Amino acid sequence: MINRLIEKIRATGAPVVVGLDPMLDYIPEKIRRDAYKEFGETLEGAAEAIWQYNKGIVDAVWDLIPAVKPQIAMYEQFGIPGLSAYKRTVDYCRGKGLVVIGDVKRGDIGSTSAAYAAGHLGKVQVGSKICTGFDVDFATVNPYLGSDGVKPFLKVCEQEKKGIFVLVKTSNPSSGEFQDQLVDGRPLYELVGEKVAQWGKDLMGDGYSYVGAVVGATYPEMGKTLRRLMPETFILVPGYGAQGGKGADLVPFFNPDGLGAIVNSSRGIIAAYKQEKYAAFGEENYADASRAAVLDMIADISGALERRQEEP
Amino acid sequence: MINRLIEKIRATGAPVVVGLDPMLDYIPEKIRRDAYKEFGETLEGAAEAIWQYNKGIVDAVWDLIPAVKPQIAMYEQFGIPGLSAYKRTVDYCRGKGLVVIGDVKRGDIGSTSAAYAAGHLGKVQVGSKICTGFDVDFATVNPYLGSDGVKPFLKVCEQEKKGIFVLVKTSNPSSGEFQDQLVDGRPLYELVGEKVAQWGKDLMGDGYSYVGAVVGATYPEMGKTLRRLMPETFILVPGYGAQGGKGADLVPFFNPDGLGAIVNSSRGIIAAYKQEKYAAFGEENYADASRAAVLDMIADISGALERRQEEP
Repeated sequence: MINRLIEKIRATGAPVVVGLDPMLDYIPEKIRRDAYKEFGETLEGAAEAIWQYNKGIVDAVWDLIPAVKPQIAMYEQFGIPGLSAYKRTVDYCRGKGLVVIGDVKRGDIGSTSAAYAAGHLGKVQVGSKICTGFDVDFATVNPYLGSDGVKPFLKVCEQEKKGIFVLVKTSNPSSGEFQDQLVDGRPLYELVGEKVAQWGKDLMGDGYSYVGAVVGATYPEMGKTLRRLMPETFILVPGYGAQGGKGADLVPFFNPDGLGAIVNSSRGIIAAYKQEKYAAFGEENYADASRAAVLDMIADISGALERRQEEP
Repeated sequence: MINRLIEKIRATGAPVVVGLDPMLDYIPEKIRRDAYKEFGETLEGAAEAIWQYNKGIVDAVWDLIPAVKPQIAMYEQFGIPGLSAYKRTVDYCRGKGLVVIGDVKRGDIGSTSAAYAAGHLGKVQVGSKICTGFDVDFATVNPYLGSDGVKPFLKVCEQEKKGIFVLVKTSNPSSGEFQDQLVDGRPLYELVGEKVAQWGKDLMGDGYSYVGAVVGATYPEMGKTLRRLMPETFILVPGYGAQGGKGADLVPFFNPDGLGAIVNSSRGIIAAYKQEKYAAFGEENYADASRAAVLDMIADISGALERRQEEP
């Protein structure tokens, strides 16, 4: 799957992933009204509004990008109907040929982590039959519990040729509270990064491992260090746009081959129509605004990467 | 909710929580067969088997214990139908008056953590209506992302008078890979423990905080230190029984008042009938075997706590 992700990045020229993290107040009034009319002001109504909103965005941007990253929390808050909208979104995006990164940040131990891995990336056996739960291409994983928590995911990645992105240095302001603590003079996130590189060694695609890392765009200096520590690790970079990261900040996350990272933007794309820059599209053309924002994001990042190439 | 948990621990004399972590191969043949007959060898069939199995256990043990802890991963692996069985189990247990600890180990940042908190502990607004997603009493939370990840949970705990248990030192063998790393000469889990105590200061029930900690039974020495560092923090202790912890190991997790900890057993209770000790019950009486195992566990832990009282 890492090979397919890279192929698609090359084909689109876009090391970009659109975060499908719908909040009800991003969703145009009309979509919400129609959904509530059909399903009431219920979890089902919210789920329908989310699904219609997502579908509009995916239909408008799918040909420009290699991947999407639905954030499961935004669906899970609406209980079972919300998770059904997550599943529907995942299936629809895979049907469009997009690589789907399930941003689930799961992590537990032993058989519990194995259950998460089976449910999100793998298969389960029911009697004599094989079934799938959510079936995404990549999942994000929290490493706090150590190797016991990650290994069951590695096993499923090997079987299914899928991948994970392990949280190393997250984009939020307080991520340093634990992640930056010095261990033998080096921050904990470096230790986690080294583990990620080690976990990934036996699960190599062509050039990059099935085991990736999450490193926030808001910490470019740390990105530079981690890029060096994990040369064969693909880095998923959240924090672009709404969280403050810019194209030029992202260069250190990429290898000289122009690969090695994929940059996520969520609100900056899916709620683009709410920004002054794209306000002229109007609420009813929210998906066209998202398309314009994707094109601008690709230009910003590609431009920054090209400028690096030109520098001596 | 921490007050209600403590009341129920006092009333039952059992600082014990039963982990409802069903695996298909724990479930008696007949229950599985009936479920597959009705729903096929499908996710729905697996979910029905899990629900019937859980119901049997809950009906047999609910009067002995204060709380249950369903592990959501075991349901999530069966996709939407599995999560529906989780929800049904949660609702059934709450209906029986049990405190429900959702073992979800969620953790993200900002609005995403807020969505998890709303979905598991709180409410969501849909149009003019208020809805609930999973609605458990306590949730487990992963702290790797720092305060940004935990604070949205604190806010919901305050509003709803509910609680969380934050992972501090987990019970698995490799938990030390990151959690035991020395930061200024002290292990990281102590730093996390201090943060937990600090997060909990403004959310106090009568004597104990709404903000608890998870510390594995397999590390009693560390439990002793953490007990001291977090005197007002209730500790959820996994790792008893199948993972190797024994009653005597658990004493350091309790305060001198005999409170301050609640010990989880999952497989050791729900699959008790598979142990030699309870094999005489037979597969069809699996729930009675679970009841016997709960009684033995309570006796083991109470006995160990009483012996401590008697020591000079």
